[in-house]
Amino acid sequence: MTSDAQSPLVTFVGADTGAWQIERMSVLAGEPIGEAKRLDIQRGVSGPVSCSWALRGAVSHVRYTTREESSNLNAVQPPLGRVEAVCGALIPIRKSAAWWALAQDERRAIYEERSHHTRIGLEYLPRIARKLHHSRDLGEPFDFLTWFEFAPEHAPAFNDLLVRLRDSEEWRYVDREIDIRVRLVG
Amino acid sequence: MTSDAQSPLVTFVGADTGAWQIERMSVLAGEPIGEAKRLDIQRGVSGPVSCSWALRGAVSHVRYTTREESSNLNAVQPPLGRVEAVCGALIPIRKSAAWWALAQDERRAIYEERSHHTRIGLEYLPRIARKLHHSRDLGEPFDFLTWFEFAPEHAPAFNDLLVRLRDSEEWRYVDREIDIRVRLVG
Repeated sequence: MTSDAQSPLVTFVGADTGAWQIERMSVLAGEPIGEAKRLDIQRGVSGPVSCSWALRGAVSHVRYTTREESSNLNAVQPPLGRVEAVCGALIPIRKSAAWWALAQDERRAIYEERSHHTRIGLEYLPRIARKLHHSRDLGEPFDFLTWFEFAPEHAPAFNDLLVRLRDSEEWRYVDREIDIRVRLVG
Repeated sequence: MTSDAQSPLVTFVGADTGAWQIERMSVLAGEPIGEAKRLDIQRGVSGPVSCSWALRGAVSHVRYTTREESSNLNAVQPPLGRVEAVCGALIPIRKSAAWWALAQDERRAIYEERSHHTRIGLEYLPRIARKLHHSRDLGEPFDFLTWFEFAPEHAPAFNDLLVRLRDSEEWRYVDREIDIRVRLVG
């Protein structure tokens, strides 16, 4: 595999050290993961020798987004690392075998035409910054790791966004989900 | 990552040993890879200590195929490992940054509506068995590794299939391609 600088891989490490303090970890579906005090986000696949968990994902191309949706998103989506965005959330999810057995058009119809994933997300921009990491092809325990950053005053809006997505048809295919809330300390 | 038995990963190893004898290796675009006598196909990520190259990919879900196309394919596509299919081909390709910057609907339109990738492929079934492996998210040098198996009398049909695909609009986005022909010996 290529060197870390070129690698699309990111590792989210739960351990005793890291820039983000873990404030709350909620298991919404499936098996929990171990307790940890801090979250560290690293480029590449190298985790520390001692950690509670190390979840890997790849920054990749869009899988369902059309050009029109992409243009709408690009017009308003904020970057990561804004100084005021000291609240973070890492939400690892896994989707069921039934989801992955669907064809591309069937998954797209559930994702957007019926669950409005992109359309709902757009309503919360630019308050919430978001980055998706793909894990399924890596043989990881989760299929996706989504990382969010927002200012403390937008935490209620972020919770509202999650309630709406979790209420969608798409989420019936989510069989493992952990909601990890963190705060920037380092 | 999970153990090899559950892993979606496959490693194609070019070395001195392996069940498939490498008869010809043609570089169609981009940088070559090292010479090797044999090809070995292994589950998981472990390659031998000494090899010329080890290319990794994941067996994954379909990215463009609709339910209708999937049903058409499933009705006629043969399994790997047929006794008469002693000819093999491994074709690693990489697509350009321009391809990966396209939205899903744009890539789908080029792939099928304009290049007829699935429709052309269907004409060669069940003669040619095919398995696609995704490598891009793994940080590998190629984006896809496609493995083909066929009986010797179907080699001309296989070559014809490749000529047609390489002549398509989709192939203008292929910036690295190696065509490795092998024969089962072990």
